[in-house]
Amino acid sequence: MKKFRIILLLSLIPMLSFGQLYTRKEIKIPDIPGYLTLKCDLHMHTIFSDGNVWPTVRADEAWREGLDVFAISDHVEYQPHHKDVTTGIGRSYEIAKPRADELGLMIIKAAEITRDMPPGHFNVLFLDSISALDKDDFWEAIQAAVDQDAFIFWNHPGWRQPDEIPIWYDEHTRLFDEGNMHGMEIVNERSYYPLAHQWCLERNITMLGNSDIHDPTGMFVDFAAGQHRAITLVFAEKFTEESVKKALEKGRTAVYYNDMLIGNQEFLKPIFEKSVFIASRSVKLGPGETFNLQVTNHSDVPFMLEAAEGEKDIFYQDNVTLYPGRTSIIRIRSKKIAEPGIHTYTLQYVVSNLLVGVETGLPVELKFKAEITE
Amino acid sequence: MKKFRIILLLSLIPMLSFGQLYTRKEIKIPDIPGYLTLKCDLHMHTIFSDGNVWPTVRADEAWREGLDVFAISDHVEYQPHHKDVTTGIGRSYEIAKPRADELGLMIIKAAEITRDMPPGHFNVLFLDSISALDKDDFWEAIQAAVDQDAFIFWNHPGWRQPDEIPIWYDEHTRLFDEGNMHGMEIVNERSYYPLAHQWCLERNITMLGNSDIHDPTGMFVDFAAGQHRAITLVFAEKFTEESVKKALEKGRTAVYYNDMLIGNQEFLKPIFEKSVFIASRSVKLGPGETFNLQVTNHSDVPFMLEAAEGEKDIFYQDNVTLYPGRTSIIRIRSKKIAEPGIHTYTLQYVVSNLLVGVETGLPVELKFKAEITE
Amino acid sequence: MKKFRIILLLSLIPMLSFGQLYTRKEIKIPDIPGYLTLKCDLHMHTIFSDGNVWPTVRADEAWREGLDVFAISDHVEYQPHHKDVTTGIGRSYEIAKPRADELGLMIIKAAEITRDMPPGHFNVLFLDSISALDKDDFWEAIQAAVDQDAFIFWNHPGWRQPDEIPIWYDEHTRLFDEGNMHGMEIVNERSYYPLAHQWCLERNITMLGNSDIHDPTGMFVDFAAGQHRAITLVFAEKFTEESVKKALEKGRTAVYYNDMLIGNQEFLKPIFEKSVFIASRSVKLGPGETFNLQVTNHSDVPFMLEAAEGEKDIFYQDNVTLYPGRTSIIRIRSKKIAEPGIHTYTLQYVVSNLLVGVETGLPVELKFKAEITE
Amino acid sequence: MKKFRIILLLSLIPMLSFGQLYTRKEIKIPDIPGYLTLKCDLHMHTIFSDGNVWPTVRADEAWREGLDVFAISDHVEYQPHHKDVTTGIGRSYEIAKPRADELGLMIIKAAEITRDMPPGHFNVLFLDSISALDKDDFWEAIQAAVDQDAFIFWNHPGWRQPDEIPIWYDEHTRLFDEGNMHGMEIVNERSYYPLAHQWCLERNITMLGNSDIHDPTGMFVDFAAGQHRAITLVFAEKFTEESVKKALEKGRTAVYYNDMLIGNQEFLKPIFEKSVFIASRSVKLGPGETFNLQVTNHSDVPFMLEAAEGEKDIFYQDNVTLYPGRTSIIRIRSKKIAEPGIHTYTLQYVVSNLLVGVETGLPVELKFKAEITE
Repeated sequence: MKKFRIILLLSLIPMLSFGQLYTRKEIKIPDIPGYLTLKCDLHMHTIFSDGNVWPTVRADEAWREGLDVFAISDHVEYQPHHKDVTTGIGRSYEIAKPRADELGLMIIKAAEITRDMPPGHFNVLFLDSISALDKDDFWEAIQAAVDQDAFIFWNHPGWRQPDEIPIWYDEHTRLFDEGNMHGMEIVNERSYYPLAHQWCLERNITMLGNSDIHDPTGMFVDFAAGQHRAITLVFAEKFTEESVKKALEKGRTAVYYNDMLIGNQEFLKPIFEKSVFIASRSVKLGPGETFNLQVTNHSDVPFMLEAAEGEKDIFYQDNVTLYPGRTSIIRIRSKKIAEPGIHTYTLQYVVSNLLVGVETGLPVELKFKAEITE
Repeated sequence: MKKFRIILLLSLIPMLSFGQLYTRKEIKIPDIPGYLTLKCDLHMHTIFSDGNVWPTVRADEAWREGLDVFAISDHVEYQPHHKDVTTGIGRSYEIAKPRADELGLMIIKAAEITRDMPPGHFNVLFLDSISALDKDDFWEAIQAAVDQDAFIFWNHPGWRQPDEIPIWYDEHTRLFDEGNMHGMEIVNERSYYPLAHQWCLERNITMLGNSDIHDPTGMFVDFAAGQHRAITLVFAEKFTEESVKKALEKGRTAVYYNDMLIGNQEFLKPIFEKSVFIASRSVKLGPGETFNLQVTNHSDVPFMLEAAEGEKDIFYQDNVTLYPGRTSIIRIRSKKIAEPGIHTYTLQYVVSNLLVGVETGLPVELKFKAEITE
Repeated sequence: MKKFRIILLLSLIPMLSFGQLYTRKEIKIPDIPGYLTLKCDLHMHTIFSDGNVWPTVRADEAWREGLDVFAISDHVEYQPHHKDVTTGIGRSYEIAKPRADELGLMIIKAAEITRDMPPGHFNVLFLDSISALDKDDFWEAIQAAVDQDAFIFWNHPGWRQPDEIPIWYDEHTRLFDEGNMHGMEIVNERSYYPLAHQWCLERNITMLGNSDIHDPTGMFVDFAAGQHRAITLVFAEKFTEESVKKALEKGRTAVYYNDMLIGNQEFLKPIFEKSVFIASRSVKLGPGETFNLQVTNHSDVPFMLEAAEGEKDIFYQDNVTLYPGRTSIIRIRSKKIAEPGIHTYTLQYVVSNLLVGVETGLPVELKFKAEITE
Repeated sequence: MKKFRIILLLSLIPMLSFGQLYTRKEIKIPDIPGYLTLKCDLHMHTIFSDGNVWPTVRADEAWREGLDVFAISDHVEYQPHHKDVTTGIGRSYEIAKPRADELGLMIIKAAEITRDMPPGHFNVLFLDSISALDKDDFWEAIQAAVDQDAFIFWNHPGWRQPDEIPIWYDEHTRLFDEGNMHGMEIVNERSYYPLAHQWCLERNITMLGNSDIHDPTGMFVDFAAGQHRAITLVFAEKFTEESVKKALEKGRTAVYYNDMLIGNQEFLKPIFEKSVFIASRSVKLGPGETFNLQVTNHSDVPFMLEAAEGEKDIFYQDNVTLYPGRTSIIRIRSKKIAEPGIHTYTLQYVVSNLLVGVETGLPVELKFKAEITE
């Protein structure tokens, strides 16, 4: 009888694997002081333009993949399925909204203004009327977005340019000068555009990274291999559309792309600091001795550390990767002439995969107390 | 310089993981003498009825998941998206066909006749006209299928019955008596109906197992955990629609469901025999000695063996699982009084997860030569 | 140039996979009020008895697998490798200790007193001298342990008994009556002994679960499939040997075995409560309406909930599994006659895989505030 | 009752996962015409020198990981565990041999002659007496190996050299000139030495790649991530020690390292040819049309193809990776002026990760018949 009980409990395990498909896997990137870190994908498609899924699928995927906010941005001017799907692109929002509500997700009404390059494609968010954007003239379409107080960003700026390197055309100057280039995708789908990144930094343009997904996400992202879609982190005061809009307008964003975070130091630094903890229960070593400092990374992002000039009173390991969800070791060695007693040390590193500029990693510090014994 | 070369080669690995998404993973279940073993899913939906994907997605999924043949069987009478998707269900075939052709897949024109239980839902395959099925009267719809010489099968017979146990209603008697119950789903989605299985055996009805998928398959099947959708194996003479139809009509099918194969012994036995090989290079043991007989299973299906009465001249292990793609050990022991010399032994097992009847496993034999030393 | 940068970053990923082997994966089972939840394996072997690894391997494995405390308990009387390994079993502690220190792990000096059943095998912890246990007479060996104030527990009580069901022999009565049966393995390796569990509850014996590992753990535990070795959770005031000893003596333990926790309600309840959080940002629904209550499980243990009689003012889902590291949905429905306003509801469940008795799950409550709208 | 049956079958699945640990996963690299492709690791350690496992573990690991042949090569002169492990290194062979026999593996009696660089470390295989190698003078130790007709190879030639780049010292000249540098590790553990590779090619030295494993393999190789240890492929006429020796002496080897094969064209070419098959059932396309040629790779090795100059009568895709165990697509396009009829085309590629020289990929051809329609 007892034995039988064991078998029944074991039999629950396959159901576990099955049921897990219908759960949400949170993206572990912490909130930062003063702001929620909202996980957002603000560029995706459905059958109402050239995508291949019904709009509710986008809500289901977003929930399962740990997003908080999403926008379906079907093309205003390009609907290859229109022979069969005869209603307008505004329908994707209407259809997805109730499902988003059921799942506690925020969906932002959006569309993609679509032209050849230049000027290329632009996403507009926080719309009242999508049909108002349906203009032959590009500038009239932009004006219709401006009239709705929309947030406007340039999509995949390297699209159809040689080597995918973006070119800043006169049209972009005009948009920017008129105050209508609010944001730019520095990451789209599987591409990162360092030059776009640089433009955002120089001109104070909001940085975004989005999936631009057309197929079901599972056909594009290898979840089994631990991959995720590209997303925009929005640092918002509250979980409201107003807060998200304000954060976008103020440039309070970062991009999560493969194993990289890209954004300003004021956002990446607290993410690092709220993710990483000294795990060693105590640090005690004699002069000239080595110690394995244990450091835990609670986030989903690996942190690849390269030693920077700094701490003079201790030797420490040059290169360390803090793996997501793992405790790693940093080897430290006290100097032979170290004074016995309690010391506070500060290890200085640059996190090479947290980009605060093009090819510029985030400088960070790891502080801890150590007892130097005699 | 040399070192650099190493780094570049390593850098290909992440691309591997990404690119692998765009490949086909064959289902390793071998052809059998005289027949191709075609992997078929003959029941699925798109946005043209109550599914959630564009029809080309069904072709892409089928290819990647190793199918050879598929049928989109949108409901003739139920199109909840019709407000937006205004053309008829015949369109799903038209749209998916060119993509199937590009991928070398066979797509069968099909539809689902949809009524409350009884009589429930029926898939009809090999249609010329889908719209001809659109009749208020169920029997007229069936007649329209018969007129097109369609293959008709009863879907998920346990659907909406207490405890999912199927009930055979008068309508089913009529269908069967008139020769129009050609097949039956003994497996649908995640359910196996043993009673339907029994009916198929008793009345010589073709057994089918299908996914009935509405969402993208990746939202329903946990590929990372090694799961697969339920499919029908069709044993066809050639890769032609005619051959597939003939095989279905003659009942040359089996069902691949979770870790089980369900079908007649004439098909499951050669599958087992063409999957399993003695891997030991030689078998040599003294009287009363033990030997690890190594057996390789080249298929994707585990084989769970339970010893049957048989071989009297050797002792052998009672329970063994031959894991997919692995070499396993069966311990054998010669009798103390074994005669030296070369002997041929036959181990007799029942494969408990290869069902040739309800709760009845497939009997199999493993033959090998052994040298008994002095 | 920019493009090149991308390739170099990607090239870090394979190294990630490689490096991750050398990290520690914490076991996510939270501390509880007043106590640290130390993860302990108090029964394992090395080449100094019948194990197959050098003692430092046990420290390395323990660290990587998230343990805090371990004990190598080589057999006092059984050293099949003694022809080659000629020093005594006390050496395994001496060799492993410096490595444990480097890794911040606690290693407890231990041994296994080994006799045929009855009385079977007993682990003794917190020893000064292992050689003192080397006595022909079992009772003298026990006395030598008692003299050292050791903690003594009965290993795998079902070992070599019919159907692995333990039998309580006279020897066990004597040990118990003399106050020397301090603990008992209710779980050993892959076996759970419900009858031993019951004895522990009835007689106030400390429950333990250990791996009894002989091979490298990776040859026995399928880490790729998410498995873990069986361990004892020790609820200790501090990370000191004294605290661990006191906790064991006071019975402050639980067992983590497959997907189950086994222990007293006073420990399992706070583990559940510190693991599970309501994730819905707000709960708002009209009378008779349904709401998806989102619940996150931050621990590594799934919680399989079955509704208990309780909350009368709301309907809620009967069976829910809260998957480890995931957010799951519990469907709730307000009654049609619900009064508008803010209500506090309490869902009552039994967690069937958290065993507070044999076949007895842990009763838990999930409390949340909901606004019933008009 | 029927339902119950389903639950019991499901309950087998967790046991599947558990049992699979105790099976052998064959390495899918095919035999080639005239030769068996034996998977060999000829350099590993146990507690009898500076390794951390008991010798039987090396046999168990080898079997599970799909090896056919292994050699334990404990250091003759370096036994840090000697205080506890007091018998000699010859014992590792004696202890592992019976387990190898039980598992049908070939174990070769071997040792490692260990000196500082130069000349460094040398493995010697096919020994009668290991103790005969225990000489103060390096040249005497080599002579003792020569006297036993051993196969001698230089281990990890880049070990302790700047940037791990090997240096050819006078000692190596003497060894080579005297005919005693039979082989060289071009791969050891995780390192590939292109310069050693070049030396082997220039001087006709047998190439080897080995794990040099000290810990349990599962602590060093991330099996969950699909990794494997470095091995030597030996192309032997038969599965006998004589055949293996002859193959090593004749240079009939290749190295399997990460996702690369390294060896001579005469061996790598037939491996490719016996691994790769055209999967398209027929190829039919009109002038100027595109076709998805499907190609299946049955091996465990990815093949990264780069187009070479060749076939003039058809356009074909420049870069394709044939993923292990997958069917991939190569896009081909007929010329607009193609003649209708059946044509035989030959696609010419270089496989960049199959190295027939330093930075030199293997040239291969893919032949197929296509029907050009009008």
